[in-house]
Amino acid sequence: MNSFHPISKILMGPGPSDVPVRILEAMARPTIGHLDPQFIDLMDEIKALLRYAFQTEYTLTFPVSAPGSAGMETCFVNLVEPGDSVIVCVNGVFGTRMVENVTRAGGKAIVVNDEWGQPVDPQKVEEVLHTHPKAKTLAFVHAETSTGVLSDAKTLCALAQAHGCLTIVDAVTSLGGVPVKVDEWGVDAIYSGTQKCLSVPPGLSPISFGPRAIAVLEARKTPVQSWFLDLSLVMNYWQGARSNSERQHRDSAEEKSARSNSERQHRDSATKNPARSYHHTAPINAMYALHEGLLMLREEGLDAAFARHQTCHEHLRDGLEALGFSFLVDKAYRLPQLNTVCIPTGVSDEAAIRKALLEKHNLEIGAGLGALAGKAWRIGLMGASASRGNVDKCLGALKEELG
Amino acid sequence: MNSFHPISKILMGPGPSDVPVRILEAMARPTIGHLDPQFIDLMDEIKALLRYAFQTEYTLTFPVSAPGSAGMETCFVNLVEPGDSVIVCVNGVFGTRMVENVTRAGGKAIVVNDEWGQPVDPQKVEEVLHTHPKAKTLAFVHAETSTGVLSDAKTLCALAQAHGCLTIVDAVTSLGGVPVKVDEWGVDAIYSGTQKCLSVPPGLSPISFGPRAIAVLEARKTPVQSWFLDLSLVMNYWQGARSNSERQHRDSAEEKSARSNSERQHRDSATKNPARSYHHTAPINAMYALHEGLLMLREEGLDAAFARHQTCHEHLRDGLEALGFSFLVDKAYRLPQLNTVCIPTGVSDEAAIRKALLEKHNLEIGAGLGALAGKAWRIGLMGASASRGNVDKCLGALKEELG
Repeated sequence: MNSFHPISKILMGPGPSDVPVRILEAMARPTIGHLDPQFIDLMDEIKALLRYAFQTEYTLTFPVSAPGSAGMETCFVNLVEPGDSVIVCVNGVFGTRMVENVTRAGGKAIVVNDEWGQPVDPQKVEEVLHTHPKAKTLAFVHAETSTGVLSDAKTLCALAQAHGCLTIVDAVTSLGGVPVKVDEWGVDAIYSGTQKCLSVPPGLSPISFGPRAIAVLEARKTPVQSWFLDLSLVMNYWQGARSNSERQHRDSAEEKSARSNSERQHRDSATKNPARSYHHTAPINAMYALHEGLLMLREEGLDAAFARHQTCHEHLRDGLEALGFSFLVDKAYRLPQLNTVCIPTGVSDEAAIRKALLEKHNLEIGAGLGALAGKAWRIGLMGASASRGNVDKCLGALKEELG
Repeated sequence: MNSFHPISKILMGPGPSDVPVRILEAMARPTIGHLDPQFIDLMDEIKALLRYAFQTEYTLTFPVSAPGSAGMETCFVNLVEPGDSVIVCVNGVFGTRMVENVTRAGGKAIVVNDEWGQPVDPQKVEEVLHTHPKAKTLAFVHAETSTGVLSDAKTLCALAQAHGCLTIVDAVTSLGGVPVKVDEWGVDAIYSGTQKCLSVPPGLSPISFGPRAIAVLEARKTPVQSWFLDLSLVMNYWQGARSNSERQHRDSAEEKSARSNSERQHRDSATKNPARSYHHTAPINAMYALHEGLLMLREEGLDAAFARHQTCHEHLRDGLEALGFSFLVDKAYRLPQLNTVCIPTGVSDEAAIRKALLEKHNLEIGAGLGALAGKAWRIGLMGASASRGNVDKCLGALKEELG
């Protein structure tokens, strides 16, 4: 065995996406300790940058030290207690995974099904909210990675609030690619991944919890079943240990100033923070990469990033349609960053085409997942992968391989 | 905010340890997909290299996609069902954490306490095994990171086997620093971390499960409470999905040949593996780093690595004793890689000394944890940190700061 030198691939699947050299370089900086004041300052900057990405003032906003699936589990194990009813919208693989999470946390999942390729239907959700007045939480996937469908998070959150339900939102594929407005929509708990539209290597899951979610966490009658994901412990590392009311009050003042002022002032404010207590050893170098990726997002600006994803999508769409592809998803709720196309009827061995793209053209596209396996391809335009050059390469390679 | 350029530190705390440039460079190679055949081959190599580090033929040997605490939780949530009795040996912080894990998995923890700074007492364990014949599992920490104590894993495993108990062993700080002989000792389930004696950045937790542990997993009456850590699902990604008996049989033949033959043959064997099914997106670049760190361990050889840790320890010990330090732990069961010393009575502000070491000398040592906070320091010599140069720098800096 030798050192691993992978042949570089253009990543146009459902994630990971292309990681810019600038982010890879940041990841390779010297590892320091997880309680080093330099690292504590970095954690504070990551929190501030994530609040920008999520468009929120929520102070409990930080990356869970594991991939997106663990971010999902963080939301469910902290907010669901045995016996709780949770309405879960299922229109693809990740809604199904939410049901698993509810059940394993001892909750009862009330499932609202929509067809794969369709968004969550708010009318169905409203009916279920009416017929299940004791449901505590509404959970749904904002951008279904298995189908490429965007659901109307704003409307769904408003419905949940009208019925006194918390919301848990999966933004793994949406964050950084289409608007995610946590505060404006009143999302209570949300999780994402790093390896989609943030273009950071996989391994961390940014989450954000609002005051209603924290109140539910603090009012729990049973301990959180996971020690590793128990936010009542993890937050002592990410925020410092203090009384709850004090935490709520001081953080919002401190962190607002941290965001608007210079780095020097920020550092001063950080030193006033109470001591961070050890919970687990954070993935130090992965945090360097996330910090750099979030800086790049802020430099580009959210609106510019969304526009870039949309423009590339339109270019790809035109090219794919010219090649005879049809989209699984209606354009009204199609994700620009994840294009699910039906495999043409003339293609007898779709896996062979994907293999040729990967091996001859060094270009990865995604297979269909779950019910769509063998029937659809998923072409990602996420983060740095959303470039005109990538679109052209992808169209050229597909044209060649499809003959 | 700007890109993060940390001031590099010599890491002589309880982990993370110094990460060699070679490993940082590996981590910065281009991100590829988690189902790319290149990555599947890398996974197979990591499994083979981990079997070398753990000294085992167990086929279910791979890194969990999260830090050591998640490796601990993987062992407990998969092997403990509600109502199970688990004997847990507590002689420091991490034994206490094991109790938390047992309780949160619905099990009943039967605690065997030993003083902090003492090893687990096999005689006490034997008595408890006698008085609790229905106990299903014995769990203990091989190398307690909070105290620097090595317990006698061989004897404890033999006792457990004599009483028909499974063993769960914490090898977070021992792996790569002192012998860990999974097969010879008959360990059933073991977990470690990357950021200690492997000198790889934190973020992954190597684990190994033997046939008795897998049988317990397969005989479960209740689902594993964590979806993310459910080995019955995760193993489909790391081993490929097949029937259980087929898996046991074929893996052992396949993987033995992979270990003894050339890389090319290994690749051939890998292509014969059944398809790996997606579970979660693995932390790709963290795996590059682990692969490189394990290669370096194999190049040096386990015995040479153990000898290096021991030699550096003796040099440090002599220097510390000359400075008037006494060790918390008797030399009979002292970890060479983690030196816990009592803070001299003349030191009024121990935190100020550690701060001076970190800021003036760019050298990190560890504070006391839990009951030892303020009373002890933990000086790590783990992995690449175990060098004569580091020992000399540490002794010089301590001498200067203690006046």
